[in-house]
Amino acid sequence: MKKSLIALALFSSMAAADEGMWMPQQLPEIADKLKAAGLRLDPSELTQLTEFPMGAVVSLGGCSASFVSPQGLVVTNHHCVYGSIAYNSTPENDLLANGFLATSLEDEVSASPGSRIYVTKAVENVTDRVIDDATAQLEGKARVDAIENAYKTIVAECEQDAGHRCSVSSFYGGLEYYLIKQLEIKDVRLVHAPAEGVGKFGGDTDNWMWPRHTGDYAFYRAYVSPEGESAEFSEENVPYQPDFHLKIAQEPLNEGDFVMAIGYPGRTNRHRLPSEVENTFEWSYPQLVERFQDNLAIIAEQTAEDKDAELKYASRVAGLNNYLKNRQGMLDSYANTDLLERKQAEHQALTAWVNSSDENREAYAADLAAIEQLLAQSQAEDRESYYRSLATPRLLGMAQVLYKLSQEQAKPDAEREVGYQERDLPRYQAYVAGMDRSFDAEVEMALDFYNLKNYLQVPAEQRDAEFDAALGLAAQMSDAELRELINSWYANTALTELDTRNELLAATPSQFADHQDVFVQAAVKLYPEQQAQEDEAEELAGQIQQAYANYMRAKIAFMREQGEAVYPDANSTLRVTYGNVTGRDHGTYDGTAWTAFTTLRGIQQKATGEGEFNAPQAQLDAIAAKDYGDYYVESLDSVPVNYLATLDITGGNSGSAVLNGNAELVGLAFDGTLDSIISDWDFNIDNTRSIQVDSRFMLWQMEHVDGADNLLKELGIQ
Amino acid sequence: MKKSLIALALFSSMAAADEGMWMPQQLPEIADKLKAAGLRLDPSELTQLTEFPMGAVVSLGGCSASFVSPQGLVVTNHHCVYGSIAYNSTPENDLLANGFLATSLEDEVSASPGSRIYVTKAVENVTDRVIDDATAQLEGKARVDAIENAYKTIVAECEQDAGHRCSVSSFYGGLEYYLIKQLEIKDVRLVHAPAEGVGKFGGDTDNWMWPRHTGDYAFYRAYVSPEGESAEFSEENVPYQPDFHLKIAQEPLNEGDFVMAIGYPGRTNRHRLPSEVENTFEWSYPQLVERFQDNLAIIAEQTAEDKDAELKYASRVAGLNNYLKNRQGMLDSYANTDLLERKQAEHQALTAWVNSSDENREAYAADLAAIEQLLAQSQAEDRESYYRSLATPRLLGMAQVLYKLSQEQAKPDAEREVGYQERDLPRYQAYVAGMDRSFDAEVEMALDFYNLKNYLQVPAEQRDAEFDAALGLAAQMSDAELRELINSWYANTALTELDTRNELLAATPSQFADHQDVFVQAAVKLYPEQQAQEDEAEELAGQIQQAYANYMRAKIAFMREQGEAVYPDANSTLRVTYGNVTGRDHGTYDGTAWTAFTTLRGIQQKATGEGEFNAPQAQLDAIAAKDYGDYYVESLDSVPVNYLATLDITGGNSGSAVLNGNAELVGLAFDGTLDSIISDWDFNIDNTRSIQVDSRFMLWQMEHVDGADNLLKELGIQ
Repeated sequence: MKKSLIALALFSSMAAADEGMWMPQQLPEIADKLKAAGLRLDPSELTQLTEFPMGAVVSLGGCSASFVSPQGLVVTNHHCVYGSIAYNSTPENDLLANGFLATSLEDEVSASPGSRIYVTKAVENVTDRVIDDATAQLEGKARVDAIENAYKTIVAECEQDAGHRCSVSSFYGGLEYYLIKQLEIKDVRLVHAPAEGVGKFGGDTDNWMWPRHTGDYAFYRAYVSPEGESAEFSEENVPYQPDFHLKIAQEPLNEGDFVMAIGYPGRTNRHRLPSEVENTFEWSYPQLVERFQDNLAIIAEQTAEDKDAELKYASRVAGLNNYLKNRQGMLDSYANTDLLERKQAEHQALTAWVNSSDENREAYAADLAAIEQLLAQSQAEDRESYYRSLATPRLLGMAQVLYKLSQEQAKPDAEREVGYQERDLPRYQAYVAGMDRSFDAEVEMALDFYNLKNYLQVPAEQRDAEFDAALGLAAQMSDAELRELINSWYANTALTELDTRNELLAATPSQFADHQDVFVQAAVKLYPEQQAQEDEAEELAGQIQQAYANYMRAKIAFMREQGEAVYPDANSTLRVTYGNVTGRDHGTYDGTAWTAFTTLRGIQQKATGEGEFNAPQAQLDAIAAKDYGDYYVESLDSVPVNYLATLDITGGNSGSAVLNGNAELVGLAFDGTLDSIISDWDFNIDNTRSIQVDSRFMLWQMEHVDGADNLLKELGIQ
Repeated sequence: MKKSLIALALFSSMAAADEGMWMPQQLPEIADKLKAAGLRLDPSELTQLTEFPMGAVVSLGGCSASFVSPQGLVVTNHHCVYGSIAYNSTPENDLLANGFLATSLEDEVSASPGSRIYVTKAVENVTDRVIDDATAQLEGKARVDAIENAYKTIVAECEQDAGHRCSVSSFYGGLEYYLIKQLEIKDVRLVHAPAEGVGKFGGDTDNWMWPRHTGDYAFYRAYVSPEGESAEFSEENVPYQPDFHLKIAQEPLNEGDFVMAIGYPGRTNRHRLPSEVENTFEWSYPQLVERFQDNLAIIAEQTAEDKDAELKYASRVAGLNNYLKNRQGMLDSYANTDLLERKQAEHQALTAWVNSSDENREAYAADLAAIEQLLAQSQAEDRESYYRSLATPRLLGMAQVLYKLSQEQAKPDAEREVGYQERDLPRYQAYVAGMDRSFDAEVEMALDFYNLKNYLQVPAEQRDAEFDAALGLAAQMSDAELRELINSWYANTALTELDTRNELLAATPSQFADHQDVFVQAAVKLYPEQQAQEDEAEELAGQIQQAYANYMRAKIAFMREQGEAVYPDANSTLRVTYGNVTGRDHGTYDGTAWTAFTTLRGIQQKATGEGEFNAPQAQLDAIAAKDYGDYYVESLDSVPVNYLATLDITGGNSGSAVLNGNAELVGLAFDGTLDSIISDWDFNIDNTRSIQVDSRFMLWQMEHVDGADNLLKELGIQ
């Protein structure tokens, strides 16, 4: 035994696993690898979106989920239905704290307003329609406008089929475009969620951490009209009967086993150019971290003795802290990698390949040079306008958005900019209404002072004369004068009133022009400049799209020549990733490693009886009594809770069904580890691990603690 | 890859490793296992105490060590020479903080007074002399007295050889006795120790913990007279030239490799009966933990605003905390094992075997019954006198010891009790002198009040009427009266003065009788009772010795019949333990594991620049510069620092040479992990791990940070 078997174990799984968020139709390209890794289905079965198992996988918009019964029962993460549990909670009946279990259909309650279940019905390559021969000749803003018009036409045509939501997504940096057609289920009901002490066990402390012991699962049910069509909530609605649903695995999941996750990953940046990596990690993220820290300090100071304000900003503070942990985690990982050097070497190899033949040079060389120059221009502009971009007071930003909406609403729907059409209105209503519980003038004034003071210190040529004029700003202002100016705005605005905001939501441009509110007046004054800037940005975006698409075309051709399949960066569309259940030979601390599974023992270790580690007493009692039932795993001498795998996931994959080689459900992906976050840019099999809740834990908790017998029966377990 | 390879890796080493602190002469009995585990020497070579490698291994009295050069250079743990570093430190020249390196013999400094190096020269089985035919007929106190007399005769005879220290040690609970003869080197000098930020890196926080990054090594040198004989310090002395010394391994140590440790383990309790296990873990240790916690609280309260008192008790507080961590660790482990059940099952099997034949029954049955009854009696007495045993004020205890010494000194040396002979006097001198820097009357009065109040609350029949009378104690005393009584003692004692204590050290019994000191008077009054109690205790001890020895004889016969070799419990004599370098499939927390090695990366992770984690800047710079030299290990991508092994060690093994299969030095044992402490009672290969400092780290630190080129040369490295 001369070598580390722990290291060998890892190496074995490395050989089998692979990075990649594959489009279902790509899987036959990597069929050999999938077979070798342990997939027992024919990979071509996974390409059929309306067949098993893909037909069972759905999106919640931001989260992934899947059907697990013929009666429309949907399983996803607890954190994906958190808002719906909170929405149904009252001080007398705190579902978050106690959990929720409907023991019959009648007991099921509506999910929070706007909750949707999207079932992908078709994916169609529409590249030739988006970039048709005419558009291919266009440049800059004209190109962007043409693409946007094509989007609108294609979506409108698709949405003729009632009850469906359609979208066009860009792949490979604008090289390809796909139309995604989804059945939109609007009557979504909450069926079951464990107590927060299970579903969110570990809270923010354990977020992105291993070892992990979170029972991050919950159940929705999809309802449709008696005719089986998408419908808003109605008592007459009936459970949706999906054509396919996933079955929970009967054979035990072991370390080393093949697993795959199917879901809707949000966004990754694996195909970015070296200059984008450098700009992000050496300028943008460090700036962001500094800004978030300052913002947090200001909010903390302003809300220190104001409980109401503290509550209003609690969600934003949590979000800032979350992003801060995320970005700092990425920066720490970046500091310990040679990512930039590798990116540069890869790009040099690509450049050499492009220059290796006349054919390649002709096809790609110009755009390869152009994209570098365009990105440099874009980055330089971002840096120049950095403080200006942060200096817009929140109420001015809202006034600008509403004024632009008003301008667009004056046009026929089909001619409006994407994002300002009738189908987008509910989003604006929610935006306007939501401000009431998230806005405090004192806090905003302090943030404005900080942002504007930073802005006023930049050189005059980087300042925005129209912005200064609209708000009455001047470089030589003293702190006292700046504070006085800011105070005067808040003394003269009615945007803090919901009625005013609702009124503006329906106002015409001329009503805006006549409005006396200080922020509305500024928004109207700034509109021509705002439009000009948007046009400029679109001009640059059009140039970038053209060059970037051809850069990606070159990259794909280069990699294919080397026998490598290329998957597109994540863009919230349906993807498949596969890997192995495996621990890690290095843990958080030198001298430690991570095992593949955690167990009920860890819940006992962490349970404190309060706060983030408030495991329910009934659960602790069941653990103490070794009441393991059928879910006992001898090698663990306990019931597995969470496990690590080499699945390539990111935000949006939350709730993704994780399947074994037979496409049986073995868990739900819900998180990655802190040093996996950089995988959005750079997948590193040594470090990157996804975290899953084991389906055996879900069943154990439901059977031995929560008594969810009706659901176990529906799942086919009992 | 269906099974956990981490678990398999462990299992492989389990098959190879084995518990056991073997007497060197036993090794041929387990020769096959040693060979199978990886020993490449002939096991019989390890039985020769005056040959290689055993001839290179020495004792420091409480620590283990070994010669590593032909010029008497000795390597051991930093914590074993800590007192000597402190002894040579001054505020201007803080050797603890900065480390120490003598670059020539002239620069070497004396170790702290009393430092010794013991080289075991002979081990002889003297059972037949200790328990001769006449003694075998004796019972109770008469038996104990006869054994004690035999000890004295044998030791005196052995110590006729000038410069040697001899002792008789009991093995297998009094079944066998061995005479140990050791060369006593009295001129010990400090050669090199790294800075405390290396040698004690992690401090109390990391004590008994993994992951660990402590450079726990240092060097002494043994000096003798120019004639090569044991001698007190003299400038004329010369380095001792051992016949053998260890060489540092040239081949890399890897996970899974065979290792063995040779040293002087202090005390274990593996052969204890079930009733002893139960009494210890369910009564004695819990009582001890409670008492230590109370004592710590009292000391903390009394010294809260008295810096001088705090310093006087710092060592005791550290000791109490250390014991508390130790005992609580054992209790936690005990709560998670079936130790008592296993002990009971083993004892039942033994009992069944004893009753399985007339021959066995006749040989063992009576003593097997007797030992159970005698232990029950002893335990009952301990419980009855528990509060009384804690109630003796510290100064009274000292007076009693000194009065007894005075009584014994009135007899010829050979007739005195063991422990009160001329050879023992230096110990009493140190005891009397040491009190000055560890005694504060206010603290002692508070402790006395706590102990006596507890004592006064026990039922009258459990109280000690003579003790009460001698000190003026009464059951119905109020708190105020008790405090007043205690105050009066401290107002009327001169034992707080070193002069008084020194005077009593030489006083005759009649001078004691005339002494007016309150504690001396009480000691004289209590002497007859004290003697009677000792006689009673000896009576019981004699009975226990007789029965226990026969119980062990039965156990050994029973185990040998099953083909198992039996090693005696540790008793501070030379032992060999072997095992494998291996991590653990479960770490401190569920979901984690321990890797076999830590690396320099962990020092970077832990370094804080102060306190217990104050790694020297030069070391951190060398790590940051990846200045690894020849000590780089590719699989670790760093230099190894500490490693885990399945070696069966305990207190006293500190500093033990750890050797590879070729008997080359690969490190020094210096600690175990917290859940290994219970191995003193119950060796569990799943949990028990020894912690070693890797010889490669020692060399790296000496070469790349501390510039100890002269020593590297002497070690044969450069």
